[in-house]
Amino acid sequence: MGGFDGVGHIAVLDTTLRDGTQGEGISLSVEDKLKITAKLDALGVSYIEGGWPGSNPKDIEYFRRVQKMNLKHAKVTAFSSTRRPRIKVEDDANIQALINAQTEVVTIFGKTWDLHVFQALNTTLDENLAMIRDTVSYLKAHGREVIYDAEHFFDGYKGNPTYAIETIKAAAEAGADWITLCDTNGGMLPDELKAIVTAAKDSVNVHLGIHTHNDSDLAVSNTITAVMAGVMMVQGTINGFGERCGNANLCSVIPNLELKLGFSCLPLGNLALLTETSHYVSELANVVHLSQQPFVGTSAFAHKAGIHVSAVSKNPSTYEHVEPEQVGNKRRVLVSELSGVSNLRYKARELNIDLPLETPESKKIIQKIKDLEHKGFQYEGAEASLELLLRKGLGQFRDYFQLESFKILMEKRENNGIVSEAMIKLKVGTETVHTAAEGNGPVNALDNALRKALEEFYPEIKEIHLSDYKVRVLDEKDATAATVRVLIETMDQEATWSTVGVHPNIIEASWQALTDGITYALYKKRDKKT
Amino acid sequence: MGGFDGVGHIAVLDTTLRDGTQGEGISLSVEDKLKITAKLDALGVSYIEGGWPGSNPKDIEYFRRVQKMNLKHAKVTAFSSTRRPRIKVEDDANIQALINAQTEVVTIFGKTWDLHVFQALNTTLDENLAMIRDTVSYLKAHGREVIYDAEHFFDGYKGNPTYAIETIKAAAEAGADWITLCDTNGGMLPDELKAIVTAAKDSVNVHLGIHTHNDSDLAVSNTITAVMAGVMMVQGTINGFGERCGNANLCSVIPNLELKLGFSCLPLGNLALLTETSHYVSELANVVHLSQQPFVGTSAFAHKAGIHVSAVSKNPSTYEHVEPEQVGNKRRVLVSELSGVSNLRYKARELNIDLPLETPESKKIIQKIKDLEHKGFQYEGAEASLELLLRKGLGQFRDYFQLESFKILMEKRENNGIVSEAMIKLKVGTETVHTAAEGNGPVNALDNALRKALEEFYPEIKEIHLSDYKVRVLDEKDATAATVRVLIETMDQEATWSTVGVHPNIIEASWQALTDGITYALYKKRDKKT
Repeated sequence: MGGFDGVGHIAVLDTTLRDGTQGEGISLSVEDKLKITAKLDALGVSYIEGGWPGSNPKDIEYFRRVQKMNLKHAKVTAFSSTRRPRIKVEDDANIQALINAQTEVVTIFGKTWDLHVFQALNTTLDENLAMIRDTVSYLKAHGREVIYDAEHFFDGYKGNPTYAIETIKAAAEAGADWITLCDTNGGMLPDELKAIVTAAKDSVNVHLGIHTHNDSDLAVSNTITAVMAGVMMVQGTINGFGERCGNANLCSVIPNLELKLGFSCLPLGNLALLTETSHYVSELANVVHLSQQPFVGTSAFAHKAGIHVSAVSKNPSTYEHVEPEQVGNKRRVLVSELSGVSNLRYKARELNIDLPLETPESKKIIQKIKDLEHKGFQYEGAEASLELLLRKGLGQFRDYFQLESFKILMEKRENNGIVSEAMIKLKVGTETVHTAAEGNGPVNALDNALRKALEEFYPEIKEIHLSDYKVRVLDEKDATAATVRVLIETMDQEATWSTVGVHPNIIEASWQALTDGITYALYKKRDKKT
Repeated sequence: MGGFDGVGHIAVLDTTLRDGTQGEGISLSVEDKLKITAKLDALGVSYIEGGWPGSNPKDIEYFRRVQKMNLKHAKVTAFSSTRRPRIKVEDDANIQALINAQTEVVTIFGKTWDLHVFQALNTTLDENLAMIRDTVSYLKAHGREVIYDAEHFFDGYKGNPTYAIETIKAAAEAGADWITLCDTNGGMLPDELKAIVTAAKDSVNVHLGIHTHNDSDLAVSNTITAVMAGVMMVQGTINGFGERCGNANLCSVIPNLELKLGFSCLPLGNLALLTETSHYVSELANVVHLSQQPFVGTSAFAHKAGIHVSAVSKNPSTYEHVEPEQVGNKRRVLVSELSGVSNLRYKARELNIDLPLETPESKKIIQKIKDLEHKGFQYEGAEASLELLLRKGLGQFRDYFQLESFKILMEKRENNGIVSEAMIKLKVGTETVHTAAEGNGPVNALDNALRKALEEFYPEIKEIHLSDYKVRVLDEKDATAATVRVLIETMDQEATWSTVGVHPNIIEASWQALTDGITYALYKKRDKKT
């Protein structure tokens, strides 16, 4: 009976490794896929659709290696289409590749939509039914649990309801364990989807699943609607990766089902692993994690407006629909021009800094931050710079080095590349160091020279590196004399932190952010009390 | 009666400039806000919520300057809260700032949720009702169209339905033209939202609006559900910018309402401006446009090779839920490069350049543009660079000067500002010129030196100046060694033109865009046939 454990449990089929990799710009090595498999198993999904063994050798290797993994929660499933028209199922190379993948479960997709049967398969409606029946029976005879994905179920049903129902009846009669209704083109609205799910449910006596795409920005809503109409399996991907606009985002589907509708999808307590899983998958796929992403984004529980912050600090439910800890995320308060003193005090508390409102020191700091923000500094993306500013203002900080001077020289000759060099002279305690380095550009040269100068005094510098560099021109109308804001992200093995610099000269702005980034690393390793 | 034109029309209130800027990392200058206002008006939204004049001086300046714009479709609205507790409405500084904004329309938000009345406002339920009544009446007496935003309407209704309804009745009795039901925390599911919208509709005889947030990944679905339950106004933002996970994304709401449900939101034909508007707003906010974004993302109609592509080329509806042209987007077949060539020929025709497909010259140019685009050049925003490239490739161009070399020197001394100087050596015809200049930063120094060198040969240089300078770091993960794209806008008395440069060294990228900008000016004045 598949992964169905009882009323109230919804099986989750994760297809990040199959449909997710059909998204533009998503590419995963076999190694990546195995790592993600382990992570999804730890999260506790019921099924992991690992790939399409008939489509590429990478996936064949994946299925070979995944057999050796000792998964606790998830069953791995291999994906393929029904047999090709007019051949025997045992003669279909894709089906043989599917069998050879040796998974306990297989997913087979077939055509529902008469238009596709004619135009994409070039065959007859009857032959398509035979293809479904033969393929499912064959796989059942080989002892597999079979998930039948009815491709274009909803569009097919709208075009020819009788035939659409016949296709899933064929799969059911051949012994499919699950029938998944697919909104392949992602065009459905929840109301019409609900009516069609109900019609399918009334026609077959097999557990149903739902597979939606996000072309109308409704994939999550359609998935939840289908569950409320009685489907028992949700298919989707981590972070909504997938063809075109992506698949239903499991990072939104699962918490909605568990926290708002009382279904269980994951083992008890595992929902708190969701944020970590989401970031991990983005990291391996090498795509930037969307900060706005519901539930798991870094902005999902970030408060910026002053009135929001003052209310949230009294009672979080005033501006939060669920508790961030339930999904493994955390509350953040942003300090920005839209925010008031309450944001800053809240932030200070987070950093274990006492910032009493009434002391002259605090007032000076608050005024300074307002002035800096007016100049274009933006601390919501640069918490390490903010912490340094607060600690300096409160006298809780020592300097690790002092700049005496730097020079940057760039030279370009006709039809030649450009050379960038930086010289730097620093004091560390009583010692003076004077060195130089080259780089890809002026900031890179300066960064290299600064690190080179500091390494002998602070060998831990070798462990940190810049991981992100962003430039924003403020008041662009002032053209090349405009003010520039630079945001830099620095990381070591344990953490990442962000710093900011603002100046009409991009080199000066970069220098501010660079030195804050390195200073924070030294502060963190040498002086920070935890 | 607000913007209500008849059955079937849904008013769109865009709050990108107000709620959108409460999103993390979104910051817009007054100049940006005015440009976006013009773009939204061209798209044809009914209302543009421009800002909160009581909250910051930037918004006050915006409202002063927006009055001089000649908008065709949209009414600008200024935002504020109801008066503070226990004072007279005419003594409330925020309300005075709202009146001084001199907009035809105002949006006033008030509390619905008893929890907020007690914990955030520290006042009584009766006083909150008086605050709503007084504020709405006062603004009506000042001749304003009033949109009353019932903050936390749904959470408030779930906690205390009687009181929630009393608050909107107070607004209705005081003369509000619209009452907007807000899912401020973004926690609602469509089914429960629908029931509560219906209850509100049964209680007041005023047009209703809907304002949702995306914390549950359901903002678009909830908005559509509310429209189907009878609301006449949708509030949202371009690209879903906004606090935490953002607001309802108008780029998804509008096409769903128009193409799938038959409502009209924009003037006839304007839906095709949607994709352009969406990209424009991201560009000004300096955030990366999400390629997966439904309807308007670059991947939204992108098909990978194989079964999808072959089916789509026979019949697009096999894998597309709407036609991309309806929303101003385009189909992309990721393996085929034919679309690129046809776009290029189209563009060349616009520039009066003949670019026959079959000549070796044209093929070379097309290949070159593909290579450059692969490196990160982007000619959509830099038509002057594209024209120069085409004319150079076709031999329709002469050089106005030749670089021999430049050097840039920057020096910073302890606690001092940074000095930037550039030396440049050029040939104009047979003459050599060698000069130097200072600037605010390296690019500004280089720009000054280049102009100084050219002025004696080309006095018209004095009439042109740079009007915009944008930097975007591509592949931000490579930090300070990443590739940088610079877009420059140059103008004279008659026109503005844009040029682009791309290089890992920001100085080289800026040099490419700078010289293209100046070269184009000389070409335009001396050689261009009109």
